[in-house]
Amino acid sequence: MIILGVDPGLTRCGVGVIEAGAYRRLSFIHVDVVRSDPKSPQDRRLLTIYDGLAAKLDEFAPDVVSIERVFAQENRNTVLGTAQAAGMAMLAAAQRNIPVALHTPTESKMAITGNGKAEKIQMERMVARILNLNTLPKPADAADALAIAICHALRPAGAIQGGEREEHLTAAQRQWAKAAQKASRGRTQGRAM
Amino acid sequence: MIILGVDPGLTRCGVGVIEAGAYRRLSFIHVDVVRSDPKSPQDRRLLTIYDGLAAKLDEFAPDVVSIERVFAQENRNTVLGTAQAAGMAMLAAAQRNIPVALHTPTESKMAITGNGKAEKIQMERMVARILNLNTLPKPADAADALAIAICHALRPAGAIQGGEREEHLTAAQRQWAKAAQKASRGRTQGRAM
Repeated sequence: MIILGVDPGLTRCGVGVIEAGAYRRLSFIHVDVVRSDPKSPQDRRLLTIYDGLAAKLDEFAPDVVSIERVFAQENRNTVLGTAQAAGMAMLAAAQRNIPVALHTPTESKMAITGNGKAEKIQMERMVARILNLNTLPKPADAADALAIAICHALRPAGAIQGGEREEHLTAAQRQWAKAAQKASRGRTQGRAM
Repeated sequence: MIILGVDPGLTRCGVGVIEAGAYRRLSFIHVDVVRSDPKSPQDRRLLTIYDGLAAKLDEFAPDVVSIERVFAQENRNTVLGTAQAAGMAMLAAAQRNIPVALHTPTESKMAITGNGKAEKIQMERMVARILNLNTLPKPADAADALAIAICHALRPAGAIQGGEREEHLTAAQRQWAKAAQKASRGRTQGRAM
């Protein structure tokens, strides 16, 4: 199964592609950043991001697109542009009938390091280790896109299906499912995208 | 000149089309709401909104698309979906090489009633009067899309070009230009989309 991860952004939109084989064996395929010029009008920037992401989907034909969830609470200056870049990824996937999964940064950190508050460098090292890379993934900020792809591959079934009984989960999976539930409560409240 | 106004929303996205003739004579062409099902996945909803807006652009071939600006400060539950719907409108316009203009609700109220804090019913009445409609525009929430289109037609040149000297403006235009400047300061701070 090919998973394409997206770390959404209007200036820099990370794209990471992995293959998930049997026994959760993961291998690296591709990592890149789609950029748009901050000096261009907003509509042109969105078109650039959309075209860049659509080209990646056509090149790698993923089975699923895993996108980092954007939160309205993050009242950063860039949050609307980030949400719109995520929207470009969702649209490009929907137009190709590729399923979309949204994962929070906490889910991603939990799935990869077992710690929902892991530091960036710890995440990068674990991403490199999981994908058998000899060096940390470059460019650094595209590592988040690989992380979101890995997160989707390693997610406990219960967190997605909602049908797994808790006693079948390992301690790490239970922690993860708890984080996912918390995130999904955020969703229900309509605060997350 | 054909102007297509968009009042962005993920559940209900208003579309209003007007023609701006000589002497700022405005006439009504079309009003409608593009809807998506709140029970559908986010990516499918965005595809529905995008397809709906793209069809309107192809049908009416506007010279410009005027979109209501979304603000991050509006920390409503729906703000990210609203920003993404606006993103769909911008993308569809950019793909057709149609220029995009963004106007704030305050600019729209100022241009149409001379009062940046006008009530909704006052706006609806003025939209009906300006477009020579015998009844208030229906559906009610699509009136905002017509208002955003009208706002673009009636904007003082100075607010857009930034080159008009203040003494050439009427009192209402000066008020309007002030509102536009305030909005554009918001833009510079990067808080608005």
